[in-house]
Amino acid sequence: MGIESLSTPVGTVPAAVESAETGLDVSEVVKDPIEEAKKLAAWMAVDRHVLPKHKVIGIGSGSTVPYVVERIVQQGEEVNKGRVFIPTGFQSKELIVQAGLTLAEIDQFPNVDVTIDGADEVDQDLNCIKGGGACQLREKVLAEAAKTFVLVADYRKNSARLGTNWKAGVPIEVVPFAYAKVLLNLRNNLGSKEATLRMAKCKAGPVVTDNGNFVIDAPFDFETFGSPIQLMTQIKMLTGVVEVGLFCNMAEAAYFGNQDGSVSVRKAAGGSEEVRP
Amino acid sequence: MGIESLSTPVGTVPAAVESAETGLDVSEVVKDPIEEAKKLAAWMAVDRHVLPKHKVIGIGSGSTVPYVVERIVQQGEEVNKGRVFIPTGFQSKELIVQAGLTLAEIDQFPNVDVTIDGADEVDQDLNCIKGGGACQLREKVLAEAAKTFVLVADYRKNSARLGTNWKAGVPIEVVPFAYAKVLLNLRNNLGSKEATLRMAKCKAGPVVTDNGNFVIDAPFDFETFGSPIQLMTQIKMLTGVVEVGLFCNMAEAAYFGNQDGSVSVRKAAGGSEEVRP
Amino acid sequence: MGIESLSTPVGTVPAAVESAETGLDVSEVVKDPIEEAKKLAAWMAVDRHVLPKHKVIGIGSGSTVPYVVERIVQQGEEVNKGRVFIPTGFQSKELIVQAGLTLAEIDQFPNVDVTIDGADEVDQDLNCIKGGGACQLREKVLAEAAKTFVLVADYRKNSARLGTNWKAGVPIEVVPFAYAKVLLNLRNNLGSKEATLRMAKCKAGPVVTDNGNFVIDAPFDFETFGSPIQLMTQIKMLTGVVEVGLFCNMAEAAYFGNQDGSVSVRKAAGGSEEVRP
Amino acid sequence: MGIESLSTPVGTVPAAVESAETGLDVSEVVKDPIEEAKKLAAWMAVDRHVLPKHKVIGIGSGSTVPYVVERIVQQGEEVNKGRVFIPTGFQSKELIVQAGLTLAEIDQFPNVDVTIDGADEVDQDLNCIKGGGACQLREKVLAEAAKTFVLVADYRKNSARLGTNWKAGVPIEVVPFAYAKVLLNLRNNLGSKEATLRMAKCKAGPVVTDNGNFVIDAPFDFETFGSPIQLMTQIKMLTGVVEVGLFCNMAEAAYFGNQDGSVSVRKAAGGSEEVRP
Repeated sequence: MGIESLSTPVGTVPAAVESAETGLDVSEVVKDPIEEAKKLAAWMAVDRHVLPKHKVIGIGSGSTVPYVVERIVQQGEEVNKGRVFIPTGFQSKELIVQAGLTLAEIDQFPNVDVTIDGADEVDQDLNCIKGGGACQLREKVLAEAAKTFVLVADYRKNSARLGTNWKAGVPIEVVPFAYAKVLLNLRNNLGSKEATLRMAKCKAGPVVTDNGNFVIDAPFDFETFGSPIQLMTQIKMLTGVVEVGLFCNMAEAAYFGNQDGSVSVRKAAGGSEEVRP
Repeated sequence: MGIESLSTPVGTVPAAVESAETGLDVSEVVKDPIEEAKKLAAWMAVDRHVLPKHKVIGIGSGSTVPYVVERIVQQGEEVNKGRVFIPTGFQSKELIVQAGLTLAEIDQFPNVDVTIDGADEVDQDLNCIKGGGACQLREKVLAEAAKTFVLVADYRKNSARLGTNWKAGVPIEVVPFAYAKVLLNLRNNLGSKEATLRMAKCKAGPVVTDNGNFVIDAPFDFETFGSPIQLMTQIKMLTGVVEVGLFCNMAEAAYFGNQDGSVSVRKAAGGSEEVRP
Repeated sequence: MGIESLSTPVGTVPAAVESAETGLDVSEVVKDPIEEAKKLAAWMAVDRHVLPKHKVIGIGSGSTVPYVVERIVQQGEEVNKGRVFIPTGFQSKELIVQAGLTLAEIDQFPNVDVTIDGADEVDQDLNCIKGGGACQLREKVLAEAAKTFVLVADYRKNSARLGTNWKAGVPIEVVPFAYAKVLLNLRNNLGSKEATLRMAKCKAGPVVTDNGNFVIDAPFDFETFGSPIQLMTQIKMLTGVVEVGLFCNMAEAAYFGNQDGSVSVRKAAGGSEEVRP
Repeated sequence: MGIESLSTPVGTVPAAVESAETGLDVSEVVKDPIEEAKKLAAWMAVDRHVLPKHKVIGIGSGSTVPYVVERIVQQGEEVNKGRVFIPTGFQSKELIVQAGLTLAEIDQFPNVDVTIDGADEVDQDLNCIKGGGACQLREKVLAEAAKTFVLVADYRKNSARLGTNWKAGVPIEVVPFAYAKVLLNLRNNLGSKEATLRMAKCKAGPVVTDNGNFVIDAPFDFETFGSPIQLMTQIKMLTGVVEVGLFCNMAEAAYFGNQDGSVSVRKAAGGSEEVRP
């Protein structure tokens, strides 16, 4: 198209994207039933929620999201030409760029038609924990900005209550200056005795987020996770907390790829479906 | 003392500090009654709230604070030797260093004995607006961490209700990625039609805080400022908001220097005093 | 076009852009000869250097740049449809968005066809001082990335030697942790006795750049400014220095709007022109 | 001492520090000869270079550094009372605090008496690679600020030429905005075909440094590593590069703990020693 974008990938790229990019039929290659199920979940989410009239689309992260981008690309150049795509982080930005879609930023397009994102765990009311990748702030901005917010994930993220499978706790982005005080508050006042500062592996010291902040992972007990909105409010009100990886009353639907190749669909409005390929 | 600290001042230093540093008797030099009143207010605050047993002391900013440091220095080397001082920002850090006091950081000493700080406006219940200097996050951390939080200011900051004299609005620190969305939320949902991104004068584009964030100034009407706690909660809950420059139910006492040289004292517990020099 | 961008401007916008946006003929409105000359300089720069085949275009800042964007818009929707525009900062980003042009980021398009930018001062060899707006890092990245780098400015920026009219010194972006050491090095080793940390006006403490760093302004004497490349190298090699606001051997041409309404053109290849409207 | 510092450790702490802290005799516990050798190397470095007259001391990071702090503590409360210690990062800050020593910052004390730090690899001329922990900027500031800079490490870091054992390449801190351009420059102009952006493990996307920047790891061939100063200069001059993890002509001596329990000492002035316990 006359403009040559960066041809050498500058970071790591999930395998599935490269497949999408080369146009290789991923379904021929992948045999793993769980991967098949994730793909099916992602495709269903796109087919139902990303309509031709939708022009501003948020793209999240997680192992199911590459199939989301793959399916959007299959909607054709004509429909995608008039669209812009807003990523929640570095990786989804690369997904968008390498798929040849048009990047945009949220401050240009604060009203998003639909955002599709992964999650670390989703409860029966579609409340979810996000932030394993430390991107919960950008993810929440894009989820909130969207008229429709949809989750795609594999079966391991599908729980009756938060904290069931995801034991690492709620990821909380905090300003570095305030982290020690927030830790004390979480431990002493909000009952998360095991709250810890997330340490990095590829640098010395704590993980630093794309916003220049730290991350605290705060586990809570079964009881507390029964009221996620209340918990989210209590944490967010702590001085020094930038954003909490609890997304409550935001998702309209969730699509889970199951081990047997089927997809479980859950809707905020109530009702659920099991879909077999 | 064997350790030579940076002799050439690296930034700008308020005149009053240099006077404190040189040991020059400021009261001989300053004739301005309002300056005299601010000094009297600061000295009273120190005399009543910074006791010899207090070892971890928070120092804020504002034109009255240099007199606070001056008075603390007058308590003598013996008592200050065992103390550490935590600044709320770059300027109070310089005040501490140039007065020869020992700097510390809040993550080492999350429990502070007493913090003395200025304010942009204080209402009759000692709720206040802070953040004209864009330091409200650090200021709030130090205010909250303190067993006792005391305000010192001049008479122009003394109002019955917030928003009376301070027309610039509530300073709100926001993550750059989310600022456009927060602006829309403030304007459309919280009724601050005039909310604006604070632009810089000495650089292109918006003011960037010491935490790497942006600042929105959001004015509210008389009605809304009648419930500062509710307003603070609503703003802080917005996704992308890091900290709100509304400090509610935090100060134990406020000392205002008046135009006539007197000091007005207001206490959270109720009661007020007028003190003449 | 089906996508609605942020209609309420979120920051400040130079008047000339809004005129460009509304399609109002600016030449009818503006009578000031210097404004006329800046417009003429900008238009000449665009007419000569921004050709229809150029697809990736860098847009800088300065009071002449709005006329650059205005002229690019006049090249027509057809030619601009296939182009992307990369801004050097917050303000040029707004210029691009409000002109309805397509934003892009340098990490997607590291090879830029042409970049047009302003300057604080330009010497006879087209070396220049930039960074009054504290954007010199992004500006230099875009200048370097461009096959052609062109300067537009008014006559006050046109000097035989750097330091003649621009007395504030060379803007140097430094990592906050290292600023005191860099200051000492500049004063003691590089002879900039008056080097100072740039303090902010709309926040307490120093100016913080869009990259989260500080800025030192370092004046040098006539002699030193005679060898700008050597000076640039010495400063950049200091530990803690991120980028130096000296651009040497980078510009291909400079267009200056004069007080009498004429334009002075200077070329790196040698030769100069005076153009009258 | 009347001031209680944060008793619950807020991050992870190397085991050796906790031992130092509890006063437990580490030598009784540790049997591993390489640990014994590292301890011996650290102790020798302290005994020779950290004299009672030294008041401002820089503390780096690495697995040998905890023994450095241990030995400094053994110099006694009397001598340490009048000293301040400046850390190169989060971990050395914790080492200092937990050892009960007094923290300080480099902008207060830009002149350091002695800094002791680890390294990723040291060549025969005491040039070294640093930055595996992404702290090379702070480390270099403290190395440069020190009258005496000393390295402590284990035998695996002791090479004739850089690049021999350390294959990951030179860690380069870059401003996020410029990373793609720096990558291209390293690959195309400086011959580091394998230069890559360092990706994080505990967050999505790239590692973010404590200064908010990215890290590129750039391997070079045997030939190029023969001229480390030239290489360092070429990299540092690239626009967007903040700091290069090559320290040339900075260390006065290096102490390596060997596998057989002995210590190899190398001096910048020439000469080497083998010391057996």
